[in-house]
Amino acid sequence: MTTILNEHDNYHQAEEAYGFPLIIKQLLNRAKIASTNQTISYADKVTYTYAEFFKRINRLANVLKNMGLQAGDVVAVMDWDSHRYLEAYFAVPMSGMILQTVNVRLSEEKVLYTVNHAAPKALLLNAEFAPMIKDYRDDAPSIEHVMWADDAEDDKVGGEKAELPDYVDGEYEALLAAASDEFDFLDFDENTIATTFYTSGTTGDPKGVFFTHRQIVLQTMASTLASALNAEGQGARYNDVYMPMTPLFHVHAWCWPYGATMIGLKQVYPGRYLAPKLVDLIEQHKVTLSHGVPAILQMLLKEMAERGRKFENLKLLLGGSKLNEGLAKAAIECGIEFMSGFGMSESCPVLSRAVFDDKTESMTLEDNLNYRCLSGSPIMLVSMEIWDENGKPQPMDGKSTGELVIRAPWLTQSYFKNPDAGNELWKGGWMHTQDIACMTADGTLSITDRLKDVIKSGGEWVSSLEVETILSFHPSVADIAVIGVPDERWGERPLALIVLKPDHVDTKMEDILALGHQAVERGHLPKYGVPSEVRFLPDMPKTSVGKLDKKRMRSMYSENLI
Amino acid sequence: MTTILNEHDNYHQAEEAYGFPLIIKQLLNRAKIASTNQTISYADKVTYTYAEFFKRINRLANVLKNMGLQAGDVVAVMDWDSHRYLEAYFAVPMSGMILQTVNVRLSEEKVLYTVNHAAPKALLLNAEFAPMIKDYRDDAPSIEHVMWADDAEDDKVGGEKAELPDYVDGEYEALLAAASDEFDFLDFDENTIATTFYTSGTTGDPKGVFFTHRQIVLQTMASTLASALNAEGQGARYNDVYMPMTPLFHVHAWCWPYGATMIGLKQVYPGRYLAPKLVDLIEQHKVTLSHGVPAILQMLLKEMAERGRKFENLKLLLGGSKLNEGLAKAAIECGIEFMSGFGMSESCPVLSRAVFDDKTESMTLEDNLNYRCLSGSPIMLVSMEIWDENGKPQPMDGKSTGELVIRAPWLTQSYFKNPDAGNELWKGGWMHTQDIACMTADGTLSITDRLKDVIKSGGEWVSSLEVETILSFHPSVADIAVIGVPDERWGERPLALIVLKPDHVDTKMEDILALGHQAVERGHLPKYGVPSEVRFLPDMPKTSVGKLDKKRMRSMYSENLI
Repeated sequence: MTTILNEHDNYHQAEEAYGFPLIIKQLLNRAKIASTNQTISYADKVTYTYAEFFKRINRLANVLKNMGLQAGDVVAVMDWDSHRYLEAYFAVPMSGMILQTVNVRLSEEKVLYTVNHAAPKALLLNAEFAPMIKDYRDDAPSIEHVMWADDAEDDKVGGEKAELPDYVDGEYEALLAAASDEFDFLDFDENTIATTFYTSGTTGDPKGVFFTHRQIVLQTMASTLASALNAEGQGARYNDVYMPMTPLFHVHAWCWPYGATMIGLKQVYPGRYLAPKLVDLIEQHKVTLSHGVPAILQMLLKEMAERGRKFENLKLLLGGSKLNEGLAKAAIECGIEFMSGFGMSESCPVLSRAVFDDKTESMTLEDNLNYRCLSGSPIMLVSMEIWDENGKPQPMDGKSTGELVIRAPWLTQSYFKNPDAGNELWKGGWMHTQDIACMTADGTLSITDRLKDVIKSGGEWVSSLEVETILSFHPSVADIAVIGVPDERWGERPLALIVLKPDHVDTKMEDILALGHQAVERGHLPKYGVPSEVRFLPDMPKTSVGKLDKKRMRSMYSENLI
Repeated sequence: MTTILNEHDNYHQAEEAYGFPLIIKQLLNRAKIASTNQTISYADKVTYTYAEFFKRINRLANVLKNMGLQAGDVVAVMDWDSHRYLEAYFAVPMSGMILQTVNVRLSEEKVLYTVNHAAPKALLLNAEFAPMIKDYRDDAPSIEHVMWADDAEDDKVGGEKAELPDYVDGEYEALLAAASDEFDFLDFDENTIATTFYTSGTTGDPKGVFFTHRQIVLQTMASTLASALNAEGQGARYNDVYMPMTPLFHVHAWCWPYGATMIGLKQVYPGRYLAPKLVDLIEQHKVTLSHGVPAILQMLLKEMAERGRKFENLKLLLGGSKLNEGLAKAAIECGIEFMSGFGMSESCPVLSRAVFDDKTESMTLEDNLNYRCLSGSPIMLVSMEIWDENGKPQPMDGKSTGELVIRAPWLTQSYFKNPDAGNELWKGGWMHTQDIACMTADGTLSITDRLKDVIKSGGEWVSSLEVETILSFHPSVADIAVIGVPDERWGERPLALIVLKPDHVDTKMEDILALGHQAVERGHLPKYGVPSEVRFLPDMPKTSVGKLDKKRMRSMYSENLI
């Protein structure tokens, strides 16, 4: 497939030389030889070997083929994290089709929007999500085939199968059982689109991103490599047991299902994320490698506190939103070795990852905690710059901030059916993250704000993340967000929105702000960074993937709802 | 640069989207941000930071440009492992030129052959190798420019510079100093040829292999990943100190100079491989990560035995030829954590690498030693099959043997100016290694022989490697080779050639063969596998890269020279 383009005629390709396209099929090469007896589990429901997994990929490909689907067709999945989802991760793109991973945490309205925008021809549907698409023929007319999965059916009285809805082709297991377990996956161009999904952005309609086979293979290689190079006890290893705690609909679960399969790890898929079940599975399967957003970490810590136990050898890759030092400290105390990082939907996603080496090992606890709350340094092949408003790169001095722009081999090349937004994303030949960041001289990245969440007080920028981190140290604070609100004198002023811990509801605003004043005295925060006001909320407004929803907070504020 | 080829028009590329070619330049992205203060040393002569290294790459690129060289031109290097060589590893291919790494251990005649075959326009020449090319204008007419390096010059009396030969453009450091330290490396097609070198094969003229930027980037990623995933104490890490002990002219030193730079490791280049110097550098710089062939390991062990010390935290990637268990045991006892593997000139080179996980950790010492002498399992993306004479894949049962054939993203696509040999190499769409191998059910590869070294006794195959391993356990054996020699009755019979340890010269043939008979009794060796005869040699005939030269042994035998 590769053509060698040198002008020298002599660097030719032998007649039958295999050019090796970087397609998802190739991620299975090592596992097919070295890991046939390794196991994959779906919660407490299913356990099978990789040998069986490879056959099931073939069966699923035959099911899709028998439905008349063709290369380029979109196949959507609406399911919790299951073995089925993993099978679709491989069988769909390996068939030349495009896998749409539907974010089932969005509102029904938005789910329908994304399904109709990507226009899948087939859908793998967990019965629990069936109500979201109401009437298929009217609401999602592109869908011609539905594969039905109902984990609950065995629990029904008498063990009888529930009747399938009439629009359904068949039950997933029955469809697989009826298909051949042999399939010859052909090679094709590595720049073929493999996956698509939608950003859960808080502004406007969700935007579709898309990734090629090549991009996914390269992200998988680089991201696993960056994690594996970490010092003893802190990196990915051949003897890890893997379980995702970032949903498989969310940016390919950071490509770790691909990575874990490529390496040939023992894998566990947890279904719906319920804290007791996650912790049970971690303990039962001795899970050592996972990933998630800080909200998941918080959930695990709470569950473990109730059990009065600690985790053993659990390595957790963190990302999605910035960690605060209070949570970091609690995680370490609970036996979790975590590695922060940075990525986004548009970047497949991983761009940076914390590095653990001699330097980090010799840090004081305070420095170590501080380091762990930063976003690590660029992983292999990633190029990053910090640009000011005019696109001028800023120095790496640990304080100069600007927009983080990136180049990497795995960035969405546009937005689906939205060329204007795509061109905006890539203005100047670098991908704009819309994140405000600074970098230290040794390349450690610190995200200080979202471009649109930046607070400008008296002409000076205030980093809401910085203020959040400082105030999060108050023992009464369960969750915190700092937003900019209009101010006659200063243009904008920071406002802190705080959820108090259940037994600390009497805490006063002044007590919490005292931490801010203290930080000013120590030179950690400019004076104008201390919020003028604190408002206490019962719950924190968050997006479907657990990020602070500051857009909603600002609109709630303007409507006097908080 | 990437074109997205899906039929759906909507998966377009934004106007200014950066397609990210996999070119060697990109291997510097992470280091340029995260490792500017890390150091690179050349033996005890030079130490500088990566920041300086990047500038020197720019300077070298300017030197080449100022000489009038253009993309596609070949630049040869004849040097020991030095900072200069590392600079050429990057600056030459990053300029779109082709780096020829000349094997200076070949005979003068063969060196000249390879230089004239690749036809470089410029040569970076260590003064020590100047005699090999005698008269440049007549003997190597393609060479228009010579950069001269003479490490010895400072040692001259009075510190005066030695006069440069008249055919030389200038001294390397002077040329660099006179050039600008700014250079804008442009992007180009990732399938551009980056490197070329010659196999040191024992049959016929050396054959030229060649590798593209893409191939080197992918080999670098996959090979570092396979090493990094190993269990605690046994894998590549961010806090390693790297020093090559496979020469930089030998298959890109297994791409580790690229890998170490990509990761941003502290690096040490040892110059010529002299055992006392290698050990001094390992101890002085606390080197933790290196690679080499078993002959290098033997050299290190001998030197360390003389010093009466052990190594600390030294991880050694092994390859090139098969390890015997005696050497493996000695290495572990001397504090070396080693990982065997398999690769070849045609494969960039790494294809398989030992895996250390829970299974290996729970092995008995004997099983562990045995495992370490095998060749590991395929690294990521590599596909392997064992073919019988008719191209039929053999089962992975730990005993069925046949020729090992491979597919990987980094295999030479032919031989330079030798399409017939290239077509033979790629017959049937898989690359033929000419190695006889078998694989266990868990994918562990065991090379049992070279196709052309196979011994056929009474119609049955004898694995010379197996016999060598068994007899190597005799305490008197320093080095051993088993070859097939003509036999009237059996067609061929194995003959053992043995170098005895200095204080064991009185050992009898029968004592050594007793180990073979014992192996027969235990079912480890067929009866016809025990050599009929042993001949004792003062030295073992080896190739320029330290492999057993069985072709020469067979011809010496037929001429009654042994």
